[in-house]
Amino acid sequence: MAEATPIRPLSVDQVQAWDHEADVVIAGYGIAGVSAAIEAARAGADVLVLERTSGWGGAAALAGGFIYLGGGTPLQQALGFEDSPENMKAFMMAALGPGADEEKITDYCNGSVEHYNWLVDNGVPFKESFYGQPGWETPYDDGLMYSGGENAAPFNTVATPAPRGHVPQMTGKRTGEKGGGYMLMKPLVETAEELGVRHEYDMRVQRLIVDGNQVVGIVAKHYGKELAIRARTGVVLATGSFAYNKEMVQAFAPQLIGKPGASIEEHDGKSIQMAQAIGADLAHMDATEVAFFGDPQLMARGILVNARGQRYVNEDTYPGRIGQETLLRNGNQAYLVIDEAAYEEGCAADSSTPFFRFQPKWVAETVEELESDMGLPAGTLQATVEVYNRHAANGEDPVLGKKAEWCKPIGSPVAALDLRNFTAGFTLGGLRTTINSEVLHVSGEPIPGLFAAGRCTSGVCAGGYASGTSLGDGSFYGRRAGISAAKG
Amino acid sequence: MAEATPIRPLSVDQVQAWDHEADVVIAGYGIAGVSAAIEAARAGADVLVLERTSGWGGAAALAGGFIYLGGGTPLQQALGFEDSPENMKAFMMAALGPGADEEKITDYCNGSVEHYNWLVDNGVPFKESFYGQPGWETPYDDGLMYSGGENAAPFNTVATPAPRGHVPQMTGKRTGEKGGGYMLMKPLVETAEELGVRHEYDMRVQRLIVDGNQVVGIVAKHYGKELAIRARTGVVLATGSFAYNKEMVQAFAPQLIGKPGASIEEHDGKSIQMAQAIGADLAHMDATEVAFFGDPQLMARGILVNARGQRYVNEDTYPGRIGQETLLRNGNQAYLVIDEAAYEEGCAADSSTPFFRFQPKWVAETVEELESDMGLPAGTLQATVEVYNRHAANGEDPVLGKKAEWCKPIGSPVAALDLRNFTAGFTLGGLRTTINSEVLHVSGEPIPGLFAAGRCTSGVCAGGYASGTSLGDGSFYGRRAGISAAKG
Repeated sequence: MAEATPIRPLSVDQVQAWDHEADVVIAGYGIAGVSAAIEAARAGADVLVLERTSGWGGAAALAGGFIYLGGGTPLQQALGFEDSPENMKAFMMAALGPGADEEKITDYCNGSVEHYNWLVDNGVPFKESFYGQPGWETPYDDGLMYSGGENAAPFNTVATPAPRGHVPQMTGKRTGEKGGGYMLMKPLVETAEELGVRHEYDMRVQRLIVDGNQVVGIVAKHYGKELAIRARTGVVLATGSFAYNKEMVQAFAPQLIGKPGASIEEHDGKSIQMAQAIGADLAHMDATEVAFFGDPQLMARGILVNARGQRYVNEDTYPGRIGQETLLRNGNQAYLVIDEAAYEEGCAADSSTPFFRFQPKWVAETVEELESDMGLPAGTLQATVEVYNRHAANGEDPVLGKKAEWCKPIGSPVAALDLRNFTAGFTLGGLRTTINSEVLHVSGEPIPGLFAAGRCTSGVCAGGYASGTSLGDGSFYGRRAGISAAKG
Repeated sequence: MAEATPIRPLSVDQVQAWDHEADVVIAGYGIAGVSAAIEAARAGADVLVLERTSGWGGAAALAGGFIYLGGGTPLQQALGFEDSPENMKAFMMAALGPGADEEKITDYCNGSVEHYNWLVDNGVPFKESFYGQPGWETPYDDGLMYSGGENAAPFNTVATPAPRGHVPQMTGKRTGEKGGGYMLMKPLVETAEELGVRHEYDMRVQRLIVDGNQVVGIVAKHYGKELAIRARTGVVLATGSFAYNKEMVQAFAPQLIGKPGASIEEHDGKSIQMAQAIGADLAHMDATEVAFFGDPQLMARGILVNARGQRYVNEDTYPGRIGQETLLRNGNQAYLVIDEAAYEEGCAADSSTPFFRFQPKWVAETVEELESDMGLPAGTLQATVEVYNRHAANGEDPVLGKKAEWCKPIGSPVAALDLRNFTAGFTLGGLRTTINSEVLHVSGEPIPGLFAAGRCTSGVCAGGYASGTSLGDGSFYGRRAGISAAKG
């Protein structure tokens, strides 16, 4: 094969021979890739998936497995929760912006019930069980949970709260290692293989092959050798985020420098760059999911304060929102102030993240002593606790809207957990795509032959995040990419 | 000329005849364009500037005129301020990040004294006079001022404070209409014209003309007709920010939706897109300057609180930092709480922005009444004022580090100004360039024949901002662009 600078496209007239051929060639065998593969195969295409590692799964297989679905899914209905596409959209537009893609969110909400059924039809199991405790995930095999702060301030007044975190049923889960995401991927991969989808592992995609403006293939490295792979009708990019590309993080999402999380090292942004090299447009490159290493059962029972001793988020909301507020708007500085009784109660409660139950760093008889021990300016934490307690005594939190059930005055002895610099995350920005998963050129026109889905694209999240939106839009728009790529 | 989709590059073999030719063709006659023109002409190039409007100036001519310079400029020295490139760099890295381009900032600081001399040699006048009052600008014709919070917390402990806002001398200035920026542009344009730089007005650049990977010209519309302009050695893009491109703002900097400011409508991002179309890389597309419509003389004398009644920024810092903290980290919600004596004192003080001295919306005898009138949760503002007053009585602000001279307990009667949703700004992200103003391809290599400077590039600012950095890096890297483009 002719020499070409990595990332820059290779002109088809430089290709001497094709090493592999298929109608649809998909880069990445995570959630977006497998969803694209199934739909492309069902549309009659010969499908080849190229995967960089030695097996399917991607970040998806390691994820907790939330898939953000709603609008009245059979699971929501069976468990007694009312929802509609309009209600779902109202929440998503409020929680995932500013700048969220309204066309995409509308489309996603309208198609959500169908997408749930598609997952079930392809073998993804959901248990008819709702988990209502504060938590990053359910510690059990429940199928439904709040996963974006739908039932917490400020969103509980924007839309009727409905849980939309749908979790594939999984026994013997190990958080962060083998969770619902595995039970999402496994049946989908089995379905794909039953449909005749082929795969090639240990293939690192390098650059696109173009015929004028048309994408007609992709170059991949296989054990150091560059191979030319022909895509007769379309290439689908589905290789994940750029959380592990240090230079891109520095240039676009510097708040995540040194703290990639809930991602995998293969998320190197290469697909984004290969497409940029042929004029693909980008969106929301600064957007980031932010995990926060606090246990929700403890957080809901205490107050989170920043480096000035001020509360800044309702502690009973989606912990990923707490993460964003902490990292992006409070300098990554957080302390959890909690009294002994609440700490013990929280530690005794259900949790999927007991490893986030750290020992308090400071314990004192009074808030004044605690404040002094923590090195906070005199009066600051005292003022915060006084205001909190004054209203909590009435079961109210007019400052941040924590729900009445969690509003209890902070008593004595009182402790503080040091949660400073306790965040990590992955990037949400990427290629700009249509609702048919066409990659948009900066001119505003689709690039012929090029499709993308998953975290190498900008999906339903712009500023905010809800757990399940990545597996959600990855699978939803992965399917669309497969359908579009099969048509060519 | 052959048809081509707007923004997409035009291949040189599609050009039937050149309508204009020059060695160096510069798009945009603002600060970056004129600086490029001068240096290219001095390097012996035949230079043509294409300007969309009917005259030179761009956003620069409307600006207050701060140029961010330091490291020991003759003006700093004459006025008794010590500075060094290392000290300047320490401040800039701390204040303009996260993610600031260290190579660019180092280079900028090292070249700053020479750049000051270059401006003076080209006729830009600076008066040996320092203005030390809080203010967006000097209301007079002083040549030097703090313009980035160098002498305020938290940066006053990171580097030795030195004022670096250098303002061209201007009599009869009218803030926002004709200020120091005009007196920066005028002598530079005169210098350029003396050097034989040609210009063509009413020319809207449309797309780049390429010969393979090499940029060899640009297409511009002149009263509806598309013209092909040949650049024998280089094209320089210098057309400003994308603050007025709604779609780009939505996709990259949605916090600015509906509030472009301190910019001009011509800032449509077109240069960024034309370069993206040939694979140019981007950086820090979310970064934004944020102006805040508060008078610094009033702000320093009161306390700014957010919608929770909490302080969030030292009120005596650079007002652009107050703007960023308000819009980006406090939901664009701000109130200025100030007692009557301080309000009157502030209104009597010097200001370049007396039109930002709004009447209080609420006035009360006690903070408790004020808090209630403002609709803040009971106890919140009282707690904030109590803590503030407790330390202000000792001339201290351990919470946010306001300087002792501004720390006075808030007395009675007390008022609040409603400063909610009082921000606007322009974008700071754009093309990724080297310190020689070469536009980088996403592959990491410079694009042959293409150079850029000013606000269509990502310059010295990533997250933060200091007044003068736009005219500063626009002129500094404009010069480099001219030098590089003349070499080809």
